[in-house]
Amino acid sequence: MARVSDIADAAKRLIVGRPVRSDRLGHTLLPKRIALPVFASDALSSVAYAPDEILLTLSIAGLSATVISPWVGLAVAAVLAVVVTSYRQNVHAYPSGGGDYEVVTTNLGPKAGLTVASALLVDYVLTVAVSVSSGAQYAAVAIPSLRGHEALFAVSIVAVLMVMNLRGVKESGRLFAIPTYLFMAAVLTTAIVGFVRLAAGGLPPAESADLTILPESGFEAGLVGLAGGFLVLRAFASGAAALTGVEAISNGVPAFKPPKSRNAATTLALLGSLSITFMISILVLAKAAHVHYVELPATNLLRDGVAVGDSYEQHPVLGQLTHSVFSGFSPAIVVVSVVTGLILVLAANTAFNGFPVLGSILARDGFLPRQLHTRGDRLAFSNGILALAGGAVVLIWAFDAQVTRLIQLYIVGVFVSFTLSQLGMVRHWNRHLATEPDPAARSRMKRSRVINSIGLVMTGMVLIVVLITKFSHGAWIAILAMVIVYVIMLGVRRHYDQVRDETSMDDDHSVLALPSRVHAIVLLSRLHKPTMRALAYARATRPSVLEAVTVAVDPEDVAELRKQWDALDVPVPLTVLDSPFREITRPVLGYVKSIRRESPRDLVVVYIPEYVVGHWWEQLLHNQSALRLKTRLLFSPGVVVASVPWQLQSSHQQEAKTWQATHPESARAAALKERAARETRRPDEPTRPGPTDA
Amino acid sequence: MARVSDIADAAKRLIVGRPVRSDRLGHTLLPKRIALPVFASDALSSVAYAPDEILLTLSIAGLSATVISPWVGLAVAAVLAVVVTSYRQNVHAYPSGGGDYEVVTTNLGPKAGLTVASALLVDYVLTVAVSVSSGAQYAAVAIPSLRGHEALFAVSIVAVLMVMNLRGVKESGRLFAIPTYLFMAAVLTTAIVGFVRLAAGGLPPAESADLTILPESGFEAGLVGLAGGFLVLRAFASGAAALTGVEAISNGVPAFKPPKSRNAATTLALLGSLSITFMISILVLAKAAHVHYVELPATNLLRDGVAVGDSYEQHPVLGQLTHSVFSGFSPAIVVVSVVTGLILVLAANTAFNGFPVLGSILARDGFLPRQLHTRGDRLAFSNGILALAGGAVVLIWAFDAQVTRLIQLYIVGVFVSFTLSQLGMVRHWNRHLATEPDPAARSRMKRSRVINSIGLVMTGMVLIVVLITKFSHGAWIAILAMVIVYVIMLGVRRHYDQVRDETSMDDDHSVLALPSRVHAIVLLSRLHKPTMRALAYARATRPSVLEAVTVAVDPEDVAELRKQWDALDVPVPLTVLDSPFREITRPVLGYVKSIRRESPRDLVVVYIPEYVVGHWWEQLLHNQSALRLKTRLLFSPGVVVASVPWQLQSSHQQEAKTWQATHPESARAAALKERAARETRRPDEPTRPGPTDA
Repeated sequence: MARVSDIADAAKRLIVGRPVRSDRLGHTLLPKRIALPVFASDALSSVAYAPDEILLTLSIAGLSATVISPWVGLAVAAVLAVVVTSYRQNVHAYPSGGGDYEVVTTNLGPKAGLTVASALLVDYVLTVAVSVSSGAQYAAVAIPSLRGHEALFAVSIVAVLMVMNLRGVKESGRLFAIPTYLFMAAVLTTAIVGFVRLAAGGLPPAESADLTILPESGFEAGLVGLAGGFLVLRAFASGAAALTGVEAISNGVPAFKPPKSRNAATTLALLGSLSITFMISILVLAKAAHVHYVELPATNLLRDGVAVGDSYEQHPVLGQLTHSVFSGFSPAIVVVSVVTGLILVLAANTAFNGFPVLGSILARDGFLPRQLHTRGDRLAFSNGILALAGGAVVLIWAFDAQVTRLIQLYIVGVFVSFTLSQLGMVRHWNRHLATEPDPAARSRMKRSRVINSIGLVMTGMVLIVVLITKFSHGAWIAILAMVIVYVIMLGVRRHYDQVRDETSMDDDHSVLALPSRVHAIVLLSRLHKPTMRALAYARATRPSVLEAVTVAVDPEDVAELRKQWDALDVPVPLTVLDSPFREITRPVLGYVKSIRRESPRDLVVVYIPEYVVGHWWEQLLHNQSALRLKTRLLFSPGVVVASVPWQLQSSHQQEAKTWQATHPESARAAALKERAARETRRPDEPTRPGPTDA
Repeated sequence: MARVSDIADAAKRLIVGRPVRSDRLGHTLLPKRIALPVFASDALSSVAYAPDEILLTLSIAGLSATVISPWVGLAVAAVLAVVVTSYRQNVHAYPSGGGDYEVVTTNLGPKAGLTVASALLVDYVLTVAVSVSSGAQYAAVAIPSLRGHEALFAVSIVAVLMVMNLRGVKESGRLFAIPTYLFMAAVLTTAIVGFVRLAAGGLPPAESADLTILPESGFEAGLVGLAGGFLVLRAFASGAAALTGVEAISNGVPAFKPPKSRNAATTLALLGSLSITFMISILVLAKAAHVHYVELPATNLLRDGVAVGDSYEQHPVLGQLTHSVFSGFSPAIVVVSVVTGLILVLAANTAFNGFPVLGSILARDGFLPRQLHTRGDRLAFSNGILALAGGAVVLIWAFDAQVTRLIQLYIVGVFVSFTLSQLGMVRHWNRHLATEPDPAARSRMKRSRVINSIGLVMTGMVLIVVLITKFSHGAWIAILAMVIVYVIMLGVRRHYDQVRDETSMDDDHSVLALPSRVHAIVLLSRLHKPTMRALAYARATRPSVLEAVTVAVDPEDVAELRKQWDALDVPVPLTVLDSPFREITRPVLGYVKSIRRESPRDLVVVYIPEYVVGHWWEQLLHNQSALRLKTRLLFSPGVVVASVPWQLQSSHQQEAKTWQATHPESARAAALKERAARETRRPDEPTRPGPTDA
């Protein structure tokens, strides 16, 4: 029978790769050409859905409203430019990778920092959910058989990303560089060809150009009044999803090659320029080609005054645009679609780089369980990667991988973080200006403070717009999640603080004082080798008092045990505990407590014989009462629980295999395995040298 | 914050009741008037679906075929009479409640016994699934809003039954007696009124009397040829479901009041007579009232030559009959329907009485995990009850609570058991006849042998019929399940046997020899009270060698630790283990192994400081590496793992509460709780008497 843990070990090696030594940590740093695709794919890929959401939101007010889409795009681009410029200051001032969390904690205090952290954690999860869901919808356009199974497909993609990231940052960086560059090339080519044809007057109309849009009730007159203005703001808020990649770079500075800050700042500037170029190009060309895009195409798109119905397939804006620009030239369209689908999936990888780093920093500060601070086999923050993937999968299932519904929850967190971060930076410059005497440095700082102040005003305004326009559409869920994450992190920190207070070495050195006597108890139910070994080991420690204790569940068994015990003739008394309720745990617990009551200065050591098995299912057949008892005994002060293992034969082979699997370099494993096979007849002989020890 | 385990404890008390002492075991025995409803509800309730399945199967060959239904019923009744008579012999010969398993194991050997046990275990699960599913369908007739949610409803009922049985046999017996007697009264009244009206020539036709039945293809000519004969046999095999209650009584003999055997035999005879009366009455009256019943009413029932379609609601045979007998008198119909639905649900209780007893016997014999032999708080076999409920829930979900599909899997196991049991009884009498000298006893034995031989032939034939007619319709699933259960039980037994051989005290008394020296290791990562306590306890045991060991994951932490250690000035050396892969487990394991290699006669005791917490979520924040390390250390021979607990404040309150909840009789709990609250400032002071100990 195959052993489960063998297969698990082999699978782990296969998927995660061989472990990496600590001193190789420096090797996983990223050069700019790799860092750009790793950290920027999120922001870049949003051109695959941000223009769609702008058009879709405007189309609520009918066809006439959509003509202002390039202006909405320009507003988003302006904010993006400001934010990128602001963040270049952050990256230089705080190169350690705490990003917004560090900036805000340092300048505005730990509660504000924790707010930013909660917001970012939730938004990272949403980045994965939105990007992968959008990617799944592009894939469903390319592969029609995927339609209706987008959520399952998206979940599978998250799983693949998770495994890749568990293998380590650098490899995924290299792997992801190619499609990201291909995407850039594809979108740039489409834009250039499109503008050339537009200038020449030869851009063909889009497939949806001859359709009209039915405005929703209340918007029959187009974008007028308060409702019209509100709709424009909503379109802007949805388009602002294009800004999400920015903070990922500032959180990821330590992953850059030195000079870390300068490289990160350059990457940021590159990312901002590309994002703006892509989005504006797509919106301008989409308007020129008369691309029409609505939330419910079946009912709200009309052909000759009649709804097009369920048979109409609405392709994404970029897809329709490609079709128009290349006059239906199939190979070009296929390339752009495939590459777009791919970068959307890879965009989620940004979060897989940012989330675990942030989680690890929070764990270091005691806000998250310590496991998140543990580097896994491949130097990646394994636990954070697993947590992120889990959260994204839940979101994708809950929202059935629908981008338009998920995007309502999105970017609240990012803008909370942007705003607080810029406020923190303003404070940062104020603080430094108070002590800096050098005029040149002062003028640089003042310039930076102006930039960050503009960033603060801009991002604060956008945050208000996002909150107002999206709150009831789903943003409240994201805010609720942030509050929950905040409360949990605060609770974890409080717990760790309390434990530290309880356990830290103060002036009271009473814990150093030794117990006066040791009262040893060997628990047994039958007389066999495991209990005999426990007895021998207990005797070897020469306690002040030693007794064997059994619980009388069945009177006949006890009588038999008493007879055998007397025949054995060991100098240890046997105590029988009464158990009217056929329980093991309670009588033993009561007995131990009574010993402690009578001699409070004694240490009670309870020896429990335990079977050690090689297969998980064997575990079900043994040790159940022992496990319960151990757990309860640990609650009593002044008690030490000593497990005396008896290794069954199956465990020997298992141990040898595990040892070999985790020590591939060691030739000793084979020898150990061989010895284990020989030892099975006499697994342990402490006093007499056996044939293997001679 | 409310503590989860408090609520769980309170809920357990509320649902399961207070624990019962072993010496009260005798009090849960059943008098006949309670034993009949407890053990016979299964067999009795099958009249709610067995006639339906006979009519449904015959209707495949069209309307003309259904007229022979009373004759098929008579054949089932004949088998039932023979089996009941046979089992009265079993009950007298084997009163210990092993039932068929004991009879077959004793007379045909353990492998045959295990075959019977596998068959019965699977059939108990099916009894629950079929009865509860049928009950859910009756309930859906009465409460139309349940329709479409039968499976969920059935699962809920299984959950309720599980909880009731966890409370103990006697209470559920009393609770179930009333509806069972009501059901008997209801069916008898219906039958008597029906026959009186039939004799008077005034029995109105059933609601489905004017419909015709469309035969399935191949049966246009009715019940002719081989196919016709086969169909009659299939109808008989489905009707044989009425026999399932019989073996439950013979397995449950120990639960009867003395004289156990005679009371069980009387109950069996009573059950047989009632079952036969009910089934024949229903089939004869259904024929007289022209009740028509098919598997797919929408397509196969015709009104004036046209299919009735989905809007037609087909009521169960007993329901249609009640409607006819009482001329649509609503109160009578409602009473019969409700009572029938109720007894079907309660019928599943038969299995809840039989399965755990059999599971416990099998666990006693080492074929199932020992936990199944453990009596729970309320003297019920808790683990068996949980296993049965789990299996039934899986079946109900898998077959969507459809009785006609589940019934194809049913009764294979019971007839395997019947046949082997009768064969065993024949051997039993042969064996006793070989030594019995008394002529009167010999003639009684010969008479019994004749009865069991007839039973053997009859049940063997039925088993063949069931296998042939139902195998491809689903019986193969039941057979596969039996084979799997058989293999698992054999594997468990082999494992226990092997462990016994490995651990039993043979002539080799080397395990009694004491290790020559004790090498104690205290693991630590930081210096705080928990590690100091572990160190103090380890020193108190006065080992031959004592050292503190830490793993160098972070060089800075180790340097700091070294400094603190030197400042502490304890006479214990600190050993630092290198860990290039940032692991804890492997370096410690390797170090312990190296000690054992150098001094194979030493005992290594590893002291691990552990946090003890009060809430489950706190557990997530601590001890994760300690747990992994402990598990792996136990695989090494010659190593004892000693957990030194440090009780955090939250654990004190938790411990006091648990103690109070499990010792309601003890006034000491309150005192303990109070003391725990006082102790929180100084949880443990071994050497100096504290204020509470003075």
